[in-house]
Amino acid sequence: MLNVAIIGYGYWGPNLARNLGHADNAELVEITDASDERLAQAEVQFPQARLSKNPLVVFNNPNIDAVVIATPAGTHFDLVKAALLHDKNVCVEKPLALAVEEGEELVTLARERKKVLMVDHTYEYHPAIRLIEQMVAGGELGRILYATSARLNLGIIRKDVNVLWNLAPHDISILLRLFAEEPSRVEASGGTFLQKGVEDVVSISLEFPSGRVAQVYVSWLSPRKTRELTIVGEKKMVVFDETLPEERVKVYDKGVDRQTEYESYGEYLTLRHGDIYCPQVPSKEPLRMAVEDFIHAVQTGESPRSDGETALKILRVLASAQASLDRRRS
Amino acid sequence: MLNVAIIGYGYWGPNLARNLGHADNAELVEITDASDERLAQAEVQFPQARLSKNPLVVFNNPNIDAVVIATPAGTHFDLVKAALLHDKNVCVEKPLALAVEEGEELVTLARERKKVLMVDHTYEYHPAIRLIEQMVAGGELGRILYATSARLNLGIIRKDVNVLWNLAPHDISILLRLFAEEPSRVEASGGTFLQKGVEDVVSISLEFPSGRVAQVYVSWLSPRKTRELTIVGEKKMVVFDETLPEERVKVYDKGVDRQTEYESYGEYLTLRHGDIYCPQVPSKEPLRMAVEDFIHAVQTGESPRSDGETALKILRVLASAQASLDRRRS
Amino acid sequence: MLNVAIIGYGYWGPNLARNLGHADNAELVEITDASDERLAQAEVQFPQARLSKNPLVVFNNPNIDAVVIATPAGTHFDLVKAALLHDKNVCVEKPLALAVEEGEELVTLARERKKVLMVDHTYEYHPAIRLIEQMVAGGELGRILYATSARLNLGIIRKDVNVLWNLAPHDISILLRLFAEEPSRVEASGGTFLQKGVEDVVSISLEFPSGRVAQVYVSWLSPRKTRELTIVGEKKMVVFDETLPEERVKVYDKGVDRQTEYESYGEYLTLRHGDIYCPQVPSKEPLRMAVEDFIHAVQTGESPRSDGETALKILRVLASAQASLDRRRS
Amino acid sequence: MLNVAIIGYGYWGPNLARNLGHADNAELVEITDASDERLAQAEVQFPQARLSKNPLVVFNNPNIDAVVIATPAGTHFDLVKAALLHDKNVCVEKPLALAVEEGEELVTLARERKKVLMVDHTYEYHPAIRLIEQMVAGGELGRILYATSARLNLGIIRKDVNVLWNLAPHDISILLRLFAEEPSRVEASGGTFLQKGVEDVVSISLEFPSGRVAQVYVSWLSPRKTRELTIVGEKKMVVFDETLPEERVKVYDKGVDRQTEYESYGEYLTLRHGDIYCPQVPSKEPLRMAVEDFIHAVQTGESPRSDGETALKILRVLASAQASLDRRRS
Repeated sequence: MLNVAIIGYGYWGPNLARNLGHADNAELVEITDASDERLAQAEVQFPQARLSKNPLVVFNNPNIDAVVIATPAGTHFDLVKAALLHDKNVCVEKPLALAVEEGEELVTLARERKKVLMVDHTYEYHPAIRLIEQMVAGGELGRILYATSARLNLGIIRKDVNVLWNLAPHDISILLRLFAEEPSRVEASGGTFLQKGVEDVVSISLEFPSGRVAQVYVSWLSPRKTRELTIVGEKKMVVFDETLPEERVKVYDKGVDRQTEYESYGEYLTLRHGDIYCPQVPSKEPLRMAVEDFIHAVQTGESPRSDGETALKILRVLASAQASLDRRRS
Repeated sequence: MLNVAIIGYGYWGPNLARNLGHADNAELVEITDASDERLAQAEVQFPQARLSKNPLVVFNNPNIDAVVIATPAGTHFDLVKAALLHDKNVCVEKPLALAVEEGEELVTLARERKKVLMVDHTYEYHPAIRLIEQMVAGGELGRILYATSARLNLGIIRKDVNVLWNLAPHDISILLRLFAEEPSRVEASGGTFLQKGVEDVVSISLEFPSGRVAQVYVSWLSPRKTRELTIVGEKKMVVFDETLPEERVKVYDKGVDRQTEYESYGEYLTLRHGDIYCPQVPSKEPLRMAVEDFIHAVQTGESPRSDGETALKILRVLASAQASLDRRRS
Repeated sequence: MLNVAIIGYGYWGPNLARNLGHADNAELVEITDASDERLAQAEVQFPQARLSKNPLVVFNNPNIDAVVIATPAGTHFDLVKAALLHDKNVCVEKPLALAVEEGEELVTLARERKKVLMVDHTYEYHPAIRLIEQMVAGGELGRILYATSARLNLGIIRKDVNVLWNLAPHDISILLRLFAEEPSRVEASGGTFLQKGVEDVVSISLEFPSGRVAQVYVSWLSPRKTRELTIVGEKKMVVFDETLPEERVKVYDKGVDRQTEYESYGEYLTLRHGDIYCPQVPSKEPLRMAVEDFIHAVQTGESPRSDGETALKILRVLASAQASLDRRRS
Repeated sequence: MLNVAIIGYGYWGPNLARNLGHADNAELVEITDASDERLAQAEVQFPQARLSKNPLVVFNNPNIDAVVIATPAGTHFDLVKAALLHDKNVCVEKPLALAVEEGEELVTLARERKKVLMVDHTYEYHPAIRLIEQMVAGGELGRILYATSARLNLGIIRKDVNVLWNLAPHDISILLRLFAEEPSRVEASGGTFLQKGVEDVVSISLEFPSGRVAQVYVSWLSPRKTRELTIVGEKKMVVFDETLPEERVKVYDKGVDRQTEYESYGEYLTLRHGDIYCPQVPSKEPLRMAVEDFIHAVQTGESPRSDGETALKILRVLASAQASLDRRRS
């Protein structure tokens, strides 16, 4: 039985706690938060857990094997570093850190200390993305050419981070997973309309060493909720539209075929419009699977799917996009 | 009665001819094309028109007041220039030319010769765009913040021009019309998958002096036909989805309102989700209106809506986007 | 402060209890259920409420002003009758009873005893239906001609009642409310595929004294979840599609206009295709409003919106439809 | 080479003529219409065809092998009878006749004279219906349980026939084809709003000897154009939505499975929500295939798909539905 503590019981902490509570082979033994009000809520939901206001109490408790950190992004680096130095296995909310050097330091530290470092990138555990990943790996789509991803809404507007750091980590993690390579070029442009210095809409262009390209578009200020990913392969194309009640994943047997004409000089391009197929996507909660993967990693020493290296690659892309936004602004 | 000749009877020429044929105050007197087969087709449809294979015959005919040029883009500059030098009024298919200097020369020449120079940018005459233009002008949307436009398909793939020059002139002409300003920065990225050196997917980021931004996305290689324009204003947002059978224009009374809190330091942002409204769009064929505007311009001397200056602004944006693609490729 | 008891803590009881718990001017003082397991759940959620297994304890308790009955449909008549005989105000789940005579007896009894008798027909309190009711009443739609309602799913399949009694009470209550008249003719046909003698799909045709007609279609065995109501008026038409995330209510300025031609014999019919409008529907939980209406009725003596008379009219239509199904089957 | 004449060159005649014109093994030799104006149009389109105003000229011409009749429904019986008596093969627009006895007489006459009698029921030749027919025949859907069909619009309003005879022939022909049995019971109800005695909306309930049921809903007075057919089988369900640009046919691997529980008395019903599949439907014009089938039938003596017997079954259902409407009205 794994003893786990949660640090941060705000927006996402209760969801993590609930999934830890359901896990067979882990026990939620302590919850830490700076707010009395949140601790009171935690007490109602998890009466058996100890409560504390200082994370150091958790770090110094030798009975605690692992910590789950769900605090604001600006605190991640310090808390994860302290946890690792105290030999805790760590799962932290996205993003791993706000600077690449910090992320690198944490990954190195975890490797040296032989501890699990996992970042809760939800889509790494989303059943639809795993399904598409298998299609890509199995060659069903043919060679992947490009992808686009749009994540738009008129919803919660953050004050501490812009829409790039708030929403794009999802799209970036999906793209890196499906492309299995890191971009060689990242450029971003954006608009700042609601809060001074905080982008509300951002468009990111990515180019990859293989010649693939991708386009990510995120916005807090759109009339329609949109969460749409398109993957275009040489053989087939896939659209994942998360806003639909069903038919979320659609596989299009569409494309352009090249036909060589031996008698003349040239090649013909012919359009192929074939069947469309909507595989049933298993309805598992991604967070549940993330928590199980973390527990499994701690118990076996195997790397979790969403490990520090994976998170670091995502962080590098976000930082490059931010640098591009900064250049443009100046 | 205006005597008009058509130069080029390929893909678009017959549509222009049909609309000229319907016009009350113009007569289609001559059709020129290099292909015997096409001239034969023209003869069936317009038995009263003279046929010729050489545009010079048209240019040298003093009875012809105006020419409509529907030849490949690469020939536009030479033909328009010759027509103007022969004192013809000219309507040419998009784009005006393939280089900014050429476009400038043509605009100057038309001004000097006091001839009408019009470019057939379809959306300048689209009833939905005119409706949205009136909303913008009337202040119904509030200050315009940004726009996005996507034009995707799995359809005709051109060999002579890339998807930027093929599809984006539509989006650019719409944006310049609605924003009523020219961009201060244009960047583009793209992917080249089907034909060497010919982009199939292109994404363009535009920034405007007023602080507005826009994003244009065009593709020949997409699973779903998409023609969607979004205009986000401070008060309202508009979506024009041209693929729908009805409800093509939707006006969303949505936005984020700023509320000043006097007692504390700060401002609150509150979301507004109000009514949605789909105005009935008049069902007039844009090409019909373009042809009428051209005839009216020739007869009155008034500038057509889609005049040379307008086309030149569009050409400048396209050329900037192409330059950005070229930089990236090298 | 009103003292309220809940009888039946199965599928719907906890929702009623939750809404009673939120009400300012009522207290949930007792919960009755035959199952120990359910009572244990009730204890966790409402530790301050007394628990009992026998409704007679509630009925004989003089401190209890009102009871909310959420037991299987077959028990409604006996429980409501007993409650009224013990001078309790009653709110019961739909349907009021399974036979018209029983329903009539309950309505008469409530009148004699001067007690509130309310039936929880959800759509009587649905903000979208109230909005449409106001449009009808205000004449915005013109004279109402006909309506159709479809409620289809592949979901919970009941064993005790057929799809008519399970789903159609919703559609019937909506139609009677909007038409403000009772049908003069009710016919139904259906199909029985999954369970012997239990219809899974039922279609009901209704004719009204005013000449209006309506069609109701309910199914447990459909590929797509559908909840769509169409109201056709002489001036405008309304569609309420409950499955959409937004634009649930659409008002179409469409119709056929009659134009009298004085010079000839006849009339012309011309089609009108005007604007479409989606009013924002307030997002209030219907059950919350039903509970508040019940409490208000008990406290003031005013009739609740969904009173016994209203429920009896719905029951009459359901019984007529069932009789039509029975005739057809024999 | 088959010599064919067309009788009636109004709304549908030109389409028939165009398809006859494209056929390799038939020649359109004569066109008959009572209107000078229509004959003038026919002359432009088919300069090689003889023109006449009297069908008897056609019937008495021994060189004409076959006639295609596209006149108003009320004239079908007389014209088809005369054509058969003059030993012509006949293809007539739907419906075959307006009374069952008339239809029977025509079918008998064609049999005696050994002539082809075909009725142009479009959906008999629609590629989507043929695809679904193959699925049904191949057992892919399992045993068929029921079907629904809706054909709604705000469009052309006929004066000579009601919406039943105008639109429902399509739905009836589809149902009879897919169910391969004739209904044992037909009931209809309707509403009459625009023209005295002419139903604008009609709902038809059908019961079949096998226990299957079907529901057909047709309307001229609806806010949304709808053409949607649902076929529910024990294994799979199919929806054919003709208004969509693609994904018109959707096959749902959904249903309710019966699982026998050996230890207890009973059966369990479990829901199955599997994949969804949209087969590519060949894009052939149904009328083209109908014309080809007619020519093939005349040349080979084989029965066409949409022969007189087939049309007679459809006519019987329409007449039963009309009788049900009449009973209700009186």
